[in-house]
Amino acid sequence: MSQLAAPFEHEVEVRYGETDQMGVVYHANYLLYFEEGRTKLMAALGLPYAEVERRGCALAVRKAALRYRSPARYGETLVVRTWIEAVGGASIAFVYEIVRKAGGERVAEGSTELACVDLRSAARPVCMLPDELRAILAPTRPPAPPS
Amino acid sequence: MSQLAAPFEHEVEVRYGETDQMGVVYHANYLLYFEEGRTKLMAALGLPYAEVERRGCALAVRKAALRYRSPARYGETLVVRTWIEAVGGASIAFVYEIVRKAGGERVAEGSTELACVDLRSAARPVCMLPDELRAILAPTRPPAPPS
Amino acid sequence: MSQLAAPFEHEVEVRYGETDQMGVVYHANYLLYFEEGRTKLMAALGLPYAEVERRGCALAVRKAALRYRSPARYGETLVVRTWIEAVGGASIAFVYEIVRKAGGERVAEGSTELACVDLRSAARPVCMLPDELRAILAPTRPPAPPS
Amino acid sequence: MSQLAAPFEHEVEVRYGETDQMGVVYHANYLLYFEEGRTKLMAALGLPYAEVERRGCALAVRKAALRYRSPARYGETLVVRTWIEAVGGASIAFVYEIVRKAGGERVAEGSTELACVDLRSAARPVCMLPDELRAILAPTRPPAPPS
Repeated sequence: MSQLAAPFEHEVEVRYGETDQMGVVYHANYLLYFEEGRTKLMAALGLPYAEVERRGCALAVRKAALRYRSPARYGETLVVRTWIEAVGGASIAFVYEIVRKAGGERVAEGSTELACVDLRSAARPVCMLPDELRAILAPTRPPAPPS
Repeated sequence: MSQLAAPFEHEVEVRYGETDQMGVVYHANYLLYFEEGRTKLMAALGLPYAEVERRGCALAVRKAALRYRSPARYGETLVVRTWIEAVGGASIAFVYEIVRKAGGERVAEGSTELACVDLRSAARPVCMLPDELRAILAPTRPPAPPS
Repeated sequence: MSQLAAPFEHEVEVRYGETDQMGVVYHANYLLYFEEGRTKLMAALGLPYAEVERRGCALAVRKAALRYRSPARYGETLVVRTWIEAVGGASIAFVYEIVRKAGGERVAEGSTELACVDLRSAARPVCMLPDELRAILAPTRPPAPPS
Repeated sequence: MSQLAAPFEHEVEVRYGETDQMGVVYHANYLLYFEEGRTKLMAALGLPYAEVERRGCALAVRKAALRYRSPARYGETLVVRTWIEAVGGASIAFVYEIVRKAGGERVAEGSTELACVDLRSAARPVCMLPDELRAILAPTRPPAPPS
């Protein structure tokens, strides 16, 4: 069972097109940063997401929660910290924290729950997570969801 | 005090560019549908969001929660139902429900909390919601957040 | 052969998330407005794009050109005018013009060339446009590409 | 006068949310890759775009052209090559080429023309590019626009 000792960190740089007329990152775009964090974490664990889909299984977001602390601006570098909070029979829960690289101020935090979906069926029912995938995706810290 | 008797409904049609390679609407885009629902609700109440910004006040999303029930696909027409759940001194809470226009199946639901932010200050501190705005934005149903 | 006499018009309303920190619509989003214009035109001609994909054929954008005249802002209603400029053996060329609904000022114009791609093949080679599709998609005005 | 000897290269990795249901990068997103290429080039020349806006000047895209050669897929790393093609009194023209990092296959190419816009005026008229900016942004190769 792979496990990362330290929190998994990935840097993203805010793009111009990710801002809105308030002059800060548009709130929906944090879900893209979360996604980038979790796919990088999965790749670091040896399970690139593209490999998951090649096995006929997609991880569909079923639930998401976000808490915005401080606005991020164009050109800033953000650090996305990602943890696997829980791995169920057919789902995986991730927790995220985004901080400013310069200074470390908290920008946002959140969580997503992903369900395993059968890509080979047109109806795409929820399916059990293959054992070999579950073995790789062990929780990376004790559960502590953002409040 | 304006108040809408029935749930406020707004239709959106799924754009091609809003799908992802899973063949369904990319999960972050539901936040755009929520936003469209709430801006249409505000306009229906006589307070277009652009008018809010002209008064030097922005409504910044501070919290969001989403629950995905059934995937939406390109070309489908969705109905976004939006309610004002609560109006605080410096924030407004909205609740949403998205259903398929054809058949009425539940697609997603969620909530967002918006904080009033002072656009005239570079630091953009949270500020009190002007009284005349709060008068317009009364809750449109008893609180019942998505679980 | 179906043919629209007048220019085909479709309205879009600028969403908040489509703006950037310059306070105007982010330039890439005009390609989404063009797309909405052409899919609405195709539907009006009796050939919804979803139907094209159901026949195993996708229309992939191969070329695009845009000319920005005047910035569009959040909340504005825009009118997208779309024409079919040319229909080749394996491609279709569309021309677009976007104007402000209020006042009619020119906002942007452009063109896209779409190639017919075989969705049933993993390699997705360019394929001939089925005759029954080509019959529907006749040019809707004499060629006059934006300069 | 700064000048880069070799073509300026910047890597981007395709995000899941940048794909569409065709299973490839949505065509509008290449404009974001172009933008990332040109802002990285400007930063490398010692003129970060944020600095341009701090001087009260925005660079607004006035024209764009794209040619798509081969679809890019989720997870792939792309190399964006950017050149400054021409610097006029009030505008700058950039040329781009995107290739697959693995193998070097051509994915897309294009150009954008940016106009200098006065951010301090509500009307945002086109203004002359400040001399000190023009001095930095010299063309980085002989003009050879994509056909």
